[in-house]
Amino acid sequence: MISDRFERLTDSLKRHGLSQILVTSPSSIFHLTGKFIEPGERMLTLYVNTSGVRRLFINALFPLEGDLGVELCIFNDREDPVTYLAQTVCSQEPLGIEKTWPCHFLLRLMELCPGLECRNGSRVIDTVRMVKDAEEIELMRQASTINDAVMGDLAALLSEERSEKEFCRLMGDLYEKRGAAGCSFSPLICFGSGAAEPHHESDGTRVKRGDSIILDIGGLVGHYCSDMTRSFFWREVSDQGREVYQTVFDANQAAIAAVRPGTRFCDIDAAARNLIRERGYGDFFTHRTGHNIGIDVHEFPDVGETNEMPVEPGMVFSIEPGIYLSGVLGVRIEDLVLVTQDGCEVLNRYPRDLRVL
Amino acid sequence: MISDRFERLTDSLKRHGLSQILVTSPSSIFHLTGKFIEPGERMLTLYVNTSGVRRLFINALFPLEGDLGVELCIFNDREDPVTYLAQTVCSQEPLGIEKTWPCHFLLRLMELCPGLECRNGSRVIDTVRMVKDAEEIELMRQASTINDAVMGDLAALLSEERSEKEFCRLMGDLYEKRGAAGCSFSPLICFGSGAAEPHHESDGTRVKRGDSIILDIGGLVGHYCSDMTRSFFWREVSDQGREVYQTVFDANQAAIAAVRPGTRFCDIDAAARNLIRERGYGDFFTHRTGHNIGIDVHEFPDVGETNEMPVEPGMVFSIEPGIYLSGVLGVRIEDLVLVTQDGCEVLNRYPRDLRVL
Repeated sequence: MISDRFERLTDSLKRHGLSQILVTSPSSIFHLTGKFIEPGERMLTLYVNTSGVRRLFINALFPLEGDLGVELCIFNDREDPVTYLAQTVCSQEPLGIEKTWPCHFLLRLMELCPGLECRNGSRVIDTVRMVKDAEEIELMRQASTINDAVMGDLAALLSEERSEKEFCRLMGDLYEKRGAAGCSFSPLICFGSGAAEPHHESDGTRVKRGDSIILDIGGLVGHYCSDMTRSFFWREVSDQGREVYQTVFDANQAAIAAVRPGTRFCDIDAAARNLIRERGYGDFFTHRTGHNIGIDVHEFPDVGETNEMPVEPGMVFSIEPGIYLSGVLGVRIEDLVLVTQDGCEVLNRYPRDLRVL
Repeated sequence: MISDRFERLTDSLKRHGLSQILVTSPSSIFHLTGKFIEPGERMLTLYVNTSGVRRLFINALFPLEGDLGVELCIFNDREDPVTYLAQTVCSQEPLGIEKTWPCHFLLRLMELCPGLECRNGSRVIDTVRMVKDAEEIELMRQASTINDAVMGDLAALLSEERSEKEFCRLMGDLYEKRGAAGCSFSPLICFGSGAAEPHHESDGTRVKRGDSIILDIGGLVGHYCSDMTRSFFWREVSDQGREVYQTVFDANQAAIAAVRPGTRFCDIDAAARNLIRERGYGDFFTHRTGHNIGIDVHEFPDVGETNEMPVEPGMVFSIEPGIYLSGVLGVRIEDLVLVTQDGCEVLNRYPRDLRVL
């Protein structure tokens, strides 16, 4: 399976008019080799070209076991690894480089290879990673099944005795007890006015009667992410709360119903956005409808107003419309969907009906 | 105080033969403006030149309050911020760039400014940040005083009932209860054979009789880090454990005694390393003696064998010799020191005597 990924990368290089690339993010290197390495400040770079060279430049500090399907170039802290890279790169042809490589490595490489044409090559690898293979899909299904269970665990634990932040600190254990490796991102647990801010950072607030509650959580299985949001009300719900909830629910369902191969991401966004606008809440849905997801919680591309790319079978992304009435209440309902041959499979099963806890 | 930091940066630019720089790390931008912004994938860049231009390029998503002492260039997600940067940069003079700027911004800037000479300018800002001013020193003293208290709290909590990882999860609360903003890095809580690996990742291991214990922890005060390690034994200590502990303690004290203005970092490293070597444990001290610290837990430069830079008053760094006998035991004793006019002030007060818990 993993060797197919190198073939897909080589095809993508050709489609993008390139013959060589530096893959530099730990996630992309994991995608291609099956090994997740966090190099910190050290250089970690995988050179791949269309002639079949696959060479991983890695510090001796990071022990490797087994066959990664790549040649290894191991260096230590007293060496300048970019000199080895410069000996591998072909200076006569443009070089694609993944976008997050720290710029000092690039500056050094350009110093060592004068005349080398360097380009942002992120799309080469992003477009490979955006279509998941069977092995990835299975891990993402497992991650979302565990996420459904953890959402139930968390909802059952909610009380006025702990703050947003204190609930956040429980999440690592909840995921591990259900078989995940921990959280896939810092959980967003928001009560009352915090739920009414789309980018609220969890703090010392405790839930109180009438509050809306947003739980946006995810876990990791085999380095693949889940990500789901459910919204609840505490003890009672206002008429406005019911109306907002129903609107967000309908937007979530409308966007999911729009997902099938060939539909553009912007049309899926519009399905949610137009519905919310028609109900009079357009000004309060202040973010994109979703984002692709896989090894990283946010992957290329997004389910946004200006993305005219059509969706393809094997893509996995979030559908997460929300309405935020500042200082009053917030509701977001998020599910992950997998694009299939004729529609989509919703990876989350946790109920979406309005619940007063 | 903060306006002095811009003056120091301008002086450093001149010393490094540069007239302009892009400051790009959140820590360096905080150092200069007093505002800590985590931009995620968005561009956050501060342009500074020797003619007094200070312009912060920032996405509208990040709300700013108060005077940061810089001009603002605010952009949104539909704009390409590098085009604004290109209009500010002087293409006729070399441009220093801080090392971690994601390379796709640099590639775009070079496309927009053909002929612009870009250089790794990290030393310009690193050498400013390595000497702390009075305000920074006060925050670092507070952070280390809290760290002393939290070390006591943690040592008192240790039991066979919780795993390394479970103790790690308690640390955020312990720091907050003592007035810090949380952990400054992922705590290293290591029992038994875990303590015998210098880069052990905390796991499900519980402490058992005869184990050595390493607690390497730190908290944040006003965005400044503390970082201290203490080693203990659980229930009993072997003769070998006592000997190793005494050796590491003596190495810690020898290195601290060597710290005064003008001494080279490599000589401080040698003070610890030679002592450990003379006692026959040289092969088991496998890392550098320490690292500078401030807004980041690891700052430039390090207390290492090849660093011939002399120390200066106002520098704060760790002294952390260790001995690791694989599969048997590990001991590390780490303190932060502040270089003074005639020696150093040790910022940690937590006792260093051998304790069996």
